Amino acid sequence: MKSLNSDNCALCSSQKYPIIWANDLFRIVLINDQNYRGYCRVDLINHVKEMTDLSDLKRQEFMRIVFIVEASLRTNLMPEKINLATLGNITPHLHWHIIPRYKLDNHFPESIWSNPKRSEKKELLESETLILIEYIQKKLNN
Amino acid sequence: MKSLNSDNCALCSSQKYPIIWANDLFRIVLINDQNYRGYCRVDLINHVKEMTDLSDLKRQEFMRIVFIVEASLRTNLMPEKINLATLGNITPHLHWHIIPRYKLDNHFPESIWSNPKRSEKKELLESETLILIEYIQKKLNN
Repeated sequence: MKSLNSDNCALCSSQKYPIIWANDLFRIVLINDQNYRGYCRVDLINHVKEMTDLSDLKRQEFMRIVFIVEASLRTNLMPEKINLATLGNITPHLHWHIIPRYKLDNHFPESIWSNPKRSEKKELLESETLILIEYIQKKLNN
Repeated sequence: MKSLNSDNCALCSSQKYPIIWANDLFRIVLINDQNYRGYCRVDLINHVKEMTDLSDLKRQEFMRIVFIVEASLRTNLMPEKINLATLGNITPHLHWHIIPRYKLDNHFPESIWSNPKRSEKKELLESETLILIEYIQKKLNN
Protein backbone atom coordinates (compact mmCIF):
# COMPACT_ATOMS: atom_id res chain seq x y z
CA MET A 1 0.00 0.00 0.00
CA LYS A 2 1.55 3.28 -1.07
CA SER A 3 0.84 6.58 0.62
CA LEU A 4 0.50 10.06 -0.74
CA ASN A 5 3.63 11.59 -2.25
CA SER A 6 5.11 8.23 -3.09
CA ASP A 7 5.27 9.05 -6.81
CA ASN A 8 8.87 9.41 -7.93
CA CYS A 9 10.13 8.06 -4.62
CA ALA A 10 13.24 5.95 -5.13
CA LEU A 11 12.28 3.64 -2.27
CA CYS A 12 8.70 3.13 -3.48
CA SER A 13 9.76 2.23 -7.01
CA SER A 14 11.82 -0.78 -8.06
CA GLN A 15 14.46 -2.06 -5.68
CA LYS A 16 18.07 -1.19 -6.36
CA TYR A 17 19.54 -3.47 -3.70
CA PRO A 18 18.97 -7.12 -2.81
CA ILE A 19 16.34 -7.64 -0.12
CA ILE A 20 17.74 -9.94 2.53
CA TRP A 21 14.66 -10.02 4.77
CA ALA A 22 11.18 -8.48 4.74
CA ASN A 23 7.78 -8.64 6.35
CA ASP A 24 4.64 -6.61 5.62
CA LEU A 25 6.05 -3.42 7.17
CA PHE A 26 9.82 -3.45 6.85
CA ARG A 27 12.59 -4.77 4.64
CA ILE A 28 16.34 -5.09 5.06
CA VAL A 29 18.54 -4.55 2.03
CA LEU A 30 22.25 -5.07 1.57
CA ILE A 31 23.78 -1.88 0.22
CA ASN A 32 26.27 -2.65 -2.48
CA ASP A 33 28.92 -0.25 -1.30
CA GLN A 34 30.70 -2.99 0.52
CA ASN A 35 33.75 -0.89 1.25
CA TYR A 36 31.72 -0.74 4.47
CA ARG A 37 31.50 -4.51 4.67
CA GLY A 38 28.03 -5.50 5.80
CA TYR A 39 26.42 -2.07 5.21
CA CYS A 40 22.66 -2.65 5.46
CA ARG A 41 19.59 -0.46 5.25
CA VAL A 42 16.27 -1.05 6.97
CA ASP A 43 13.36 0.52 5.07
CA LEU A 44 9.82 1.13 6.12
CA ILE A 45 7.81 -0.28 3.22
CA ASN A 46 5.15 2.42 3.41
CA HIS A 47 6.00 5.98 2.34
CA VAL A 48 6.28 7.91 5.63
CA LYS A 49 8.61 10.87 6.18
CA GLU A 50 9.55 11.03 9.86
CA MET A 51 9.95 8.57 12.75
CA THR A 52 7.52 10.62 14.84
CA ASP A 53 4.87 10.17 12.12
CA LEU A 54 4.74 6.49 13.13
CA SER A 55 2.76 5.01 16.01
CA ASP A 56 4.80 4.22 19.11
CA LEU A 57 4.51 0.52 18.39
CA LYS A 58 5.67 0.74 14.77
CA ARG A 59 8.53 3.02 15.75
CA GLN A 60 9.64 0.59 18.46
CA GLU A 61 9.44 -2.33 16.03
CA PHE A 62 11.46 -0.38 13.44
CA MET A 63 14.19 0.31 16.00
CA ARG A 64 14.10 -3.29 17.24
CA ILE A 65 14.94 -4.45 13.69
CA VAL A 66 17.67 -1.81 13.32
CA PHE A 67 19.31 -3.02 16.52
CA ILE A 68 19.04 -6.68 15.50
CA VAL A 69 20.93 -5.76 12.33
CA GLU A 70 23.49 -3.81 14.39
CA ALA A 71 24.03 -6.78 16.71
CA SER A 72 24.29 -9.16 13.76
CA LEU A 73 26.93 -7.01 12.06
CA ARG A 74 28.93 -6.74 15.26
CA THR A 75 28.85 -10.49 15.86
CA ASN A 76 29.74 -11.45 12.30
CA LEU A 77 32.11 -8.70 11.18
CA MET A 78 33.51 -7.11 14.33
CA PRO A 79 33.65 -3.55 12.94
CA GLU A 80 35.49 -0.78 14.76
CA LYS A 81 32.21 1.14 15.21
CA ILE A 82 28.59 1.07 14.11
CA ASN A 83 27.09 4.21 12.57
CA LEU A 84 23.30 4.57 12.53
CA ALA A 85 21.54 7.30 10.60
CA THR A 86 18.21 8.23 9.11
CA LEU A 87 18.53 11.34 6.96
CA GLY A 88 16.13 11.24 4.00
CA ASN A 89 16.59 14.81 2.81
CA ILE A 90 16.63 13.64 -0.80
CA THR A 91 14.38 10.61 -0.28
CA PRO A 92 11.91 11.48 2.50
CA HIS A 93 10.80 7.88 2.95
CA LEU A 94 11.95 6.40 6.24
CA HIS A 95 15.06 4.25 5.99
CA TRP A 96 17.86 3.55 8.45
CA HIS A 97 21.49 3.18 7.45
CA ILE A 98 23.35 0.62 9.55
CA ILE A 99 26.97 1.17 8.60
CA PRO A 100 29.79 -0.93 10.01
CA ARG A 101 32.92 1.17 10.11
CA TYR A 102 36.49 -0.09 9.91
CA LYS A 103 39.73 1.72 10.72
CA LEU A 104 40.86 1.48 7.10
CA ASP A 105 37.53 2.14 5.37
CA ASN A 106 37.55 5.03 2.93
CA HIS A 107 36.29 7.68 5.37
CA PHE A 108 37.25 6.54 8.86
CA PRO A 109 37.01 8.27 11.32
CA GLU A 110 34.83 10.80 9.45
CA SER A 111 31.25 10.11 8.41
CA ILE A 112 30.74 8.25 5.14
CA TRP A 113 29.23 11.48 3.73
CA SER A 114 32.45 13.45 4.10
CA ASN A 115 35.32 13.56 1.61
CA PRO A 116 37.04 10.19 1.30
CA LYS A 117 40.50 9.76 2.83
CA ARG A 118 41.30 6.51 1.00
CA SER A 119 40.05 4.71 -2.08
CA GLU A 120 40.57 1.06 -1.32
CA LYS A 121 38.16 -1.74 -2.07
CA LYS A 122 37.69 -4.22 0.75
CA GLU A 123 34.52 -5.97 -0.24
CA LEU A 124 32.63 -8.54 1.76
CA LEU A 125 33.33 -12.00 0.33
CA GLU A 126 30.37 -13.88 -1.12
CA SER A 127 30.78 -16.57 1.55
CA GLU A 128 30.75 -13.91 4.31
CA THR A 129 27.71 -12.29 2.72
CA LEU A 130 25.77 -15.53 2.75
CA ILE A 131 26.63 -16.21 6.38
CA LEU A 132 25.58 -12.68 7.36
CA ILE A 133 22.27 -12.87 5.48
CA GLU A 134 21.41 -16.22 7.01
CA TYR A 135 22.31 -14.94 10.49
CA ILE A 136 20.06 -11.87 10.16
CA GLN A 137 17.21 -13.92 8.75
CA LYS A 138 17.44 -16.37 11.67
CA LYS A 139 17.45 -13.56 14.24
CA LEU A 140 14.35 -11.98 12.70
CA ASN A 141 12.42 -15.15 12.04
CA ASN A 142 12.76 -16.36 15.63
CA MET B 1 30.00 6.95 37.35
CA LYS B 2 32.57 6.69 34.57
CA SER B 3 33.38 3.46 32.80
CA LEU B 4 36.62 2.11 31.48
CA ASN B 5 38.16 3.99 28.56
CA SER B 6 36.52 7.24 29.52
CA ASP B 7 39.86 9.01 29.93
CA ASN B 8 40.33 11.64 27.24
CA CYS B 9 36.72 11.25 26.13
CA ALA B 10 35.30 14.61 25.04
CA LEU B 11 31.85 13.68 26.34
CA CYS B 12 33.11 12.50 29.73
CA SER B 13 35.11 15.65 30.36
CA SER B 14 33.75 19.16 30.76
CA GLN B 15 30.66 20.13 28.79
CA LYS B 16 31.09 22.20 25.68
CA TYR B 17 27.39 22.87 25.11
CA PRO B 18 24.58 24.02 27.42
CA ILE B 19 22.65 21.20 29.03
CA ILE B 20 18.94 21.82 28.52
CA TRP B 21 17.70 18.73 30.37
CA ALA B 22 19.26 15.79 32.20
CA ASN B 23 18.49 12.91 34.50
CA ASP B 24 20.85 10.29 35.98
CA LEU B 25 21.31 8.49 32.67
CA PHE B 26 20.89 10.97 29.84
CA ARG B 27 21.33 14.64 29.03
CA ILE B 28 20.16 16.83 26.19
CA VAL B 29 22.46 19.59 24.97
CA LEU B 30 21.86 22.38 22.50
CA ILE B 31 24.59 22.29 19.86
CA ASN B 32 25.80 25.76 19.09
CA ASP B 33 25.86 25.35 15.33
CA GLN B 34 22.48 26.91 15.03
CA ASN B 35 22.65 27.19 11.28
CA TYR B 36 20.58 24.06 11.89
CA ARG B 37 18.20 25.90 14.15
CA GLY B 38 17.31 23.70 17.12
CA TYR B 39 20.13 21.16 16.57
CA CYS B 40 20.23 19.06 19.77
CA ARG B 41 22.24 16.11 20.96
CA VAL B 42 21.14 13.45 23.41
CA ASP B 43 24.07 11.91 25.30
CA LEU B 44 24.24 8.84 27.43
CA ILE B 45 25.98 10.04 30.56
CA ASN B 46 27.93 6.81 31.05
CA HIS B 47 30.76 5.97 28.65
CA VAL B 48 29.34 3.19 26.45
CA LYS B 49 30.27 2.62 22.82
CA GLU B 50 27.36 1.00 21.00
CA MET B 51 23.56 0.98 21.31
CA THR B 52 23.60 -2.82 21.48
CA ASP B 53 25.88 -2.62 24.51
CA LEU B 54 22.91 -1.21 26.45
CA SER B 55 20.13 -3.22 28.05
CA ASP B 56 16.87 -3.33 26.08
CA LEU B 57 15.25 -1.03 28.61
CA LYS B 58 17.99 1.61 28.55
CA ARG B 59 18.12 1.51 24.76
CA GLN B 60 14.35 2.01 24.56
CA GLU B 61 14.50 4.88 27.02
CA PHE B 62 17.34 6.48 25.04
CA MET B 63 15.29 6.30 21.84
CA ARG B 64 12.18 7.56 23.61
CA ILE B 65 14.08 10.72 24.58
CA VAL B 66 15.50 11.12 21.05
CA PHE B 67 11.99 10.95 19.62
CA ILE B 68 10.62 13.42 22.18
CA VAL B 69 13.31 15.85 21.04
CA GLU B 70 12.45 15.13 17.39
CA ALA B 71 8.74 15.80 18.02
CA SER B 72 9.56 18.97 19.97
CA LEU B 73 11.71 20.33 17.16
CA ARG B 74 9.04 19.57 14.57
CA THR B 75 6.33 21.27 16.61
CA ASN B 76 8.36 24.37 17.42
CA LEU B 77 10.49 24.91 14.32
CA MET B 78 8.76 23.07 11.46
CA PRO B 79 11.97 21.95 9.73
CA GLU B 80 11.91 20.48 6.23
CA LYS B 81 13.30 17.18 7.57
CA ILE B 82 14.73 15.67 10.71
CA ASN B 83 18.08 13.88 10.52
CA LEU B 84 19.00 11.42 13.25
CA ALA B 85 22.44 9.92 13.61
CA THR B 86 24.75 8.22 16.06
CA LEU B 87 28.24 7.90 14.62
CA GLY B 88 30.90 8.20 17.34
CA ASN B 89 33.91 7.16 15.28
CA ILE B 90 36.00 9.89 16.88
CA THR B 91 34.15 9.94 20.22
CA PRO B 92 32.94 6.38 20.89
CA HIS B 93 30.62 7.46 23.69
CA LEU B 94 26.95 7.10 22.75
CA HIS B 95 25.30 10.31 21.62
CA TRP B 96 22.49 11.00 19.17
CA HIS B 97 22.42 13.97 16.82
CA ILE B 98 18.92 15.34 16.27
CA ILE B 99 19.35 17.75 13.39
CA PRO B 100 16.49 19.82 12.03
CA ARG B 101 17.14 20.49 8.36
CA TYR B 102 15.92 23.48 6.35
CA LYS B 103 15.85 23.96 2.59
CA LEU B 104 18.33 26.83 2.83
CA ASP B 105 20.61 25.44 5.50
CA ASN B 106 24.25 25.22 4.49
CA HIS B 107 24.19 21.61 3.32
CA PHE B 108 20.62 20.84 2.29
CA PRO B 109 19.80 18.32 0.82
CA GLU B 110 23.14 16.66 1.58
CA SER B 111 24.17 15.47 5.03
CA ILE B 112 25.68 18.05 7.37
CA TRP B 113 28.97 16.13 7.09
CA SER B 114 29.33 16.77 3.37
CA ASN B 115 30.82 19.86 1.73
CA PRO B 116 28.72 22.96 2.40
CA LYS B 117 26.67 24.42 -0.45
CA ARG B 118 26.02 27.75 1.27
CA SER B 119 27.54 29.76 4.10
CA GLU B 120 24.65 31.69 5.56
CA LYS B 121 23.97 32.23 9.22
CA LYS B 122 20.36 31.75 10.25
CA GLU B 123 20.60 31.34 13.96
CA LEU B 124 17.84 30.48 16.35
CA LEU B 125 16.73 33.65 18.16
CA GLU B 126 17.23 33.72 21.93
CA SER B 127 13.45 33.95 22.42
CA GLU B 128 12.91 30.89 20.18
CA THR B 129 15.66 29.05 22.05
CA LEU B 130 14.02 29.68 25.41
CA ILE B 131 10.63 28.51 24.14
CA LEU B 132 12.17 25.34 22.69
CA ILE B 133 14.10 24.51 25.86
CA GLU B 134 11.03 25.01 28.03
CA TYR B 135 8.95 22.85 25.67
CA ILE B 136 11.46 19.96 25.75
CA GLN B 137 11.79 20.19 29.54
CA LYS B 138 8.02 20.03 29.95
CA LYS B 139 7.71 17.01 27.67
CA LEU B 140 10.38 15.15 29.59
CA ASN B 141 9.34 16.10 33.07
CA ASN B 142 5.76 14.94 32.54
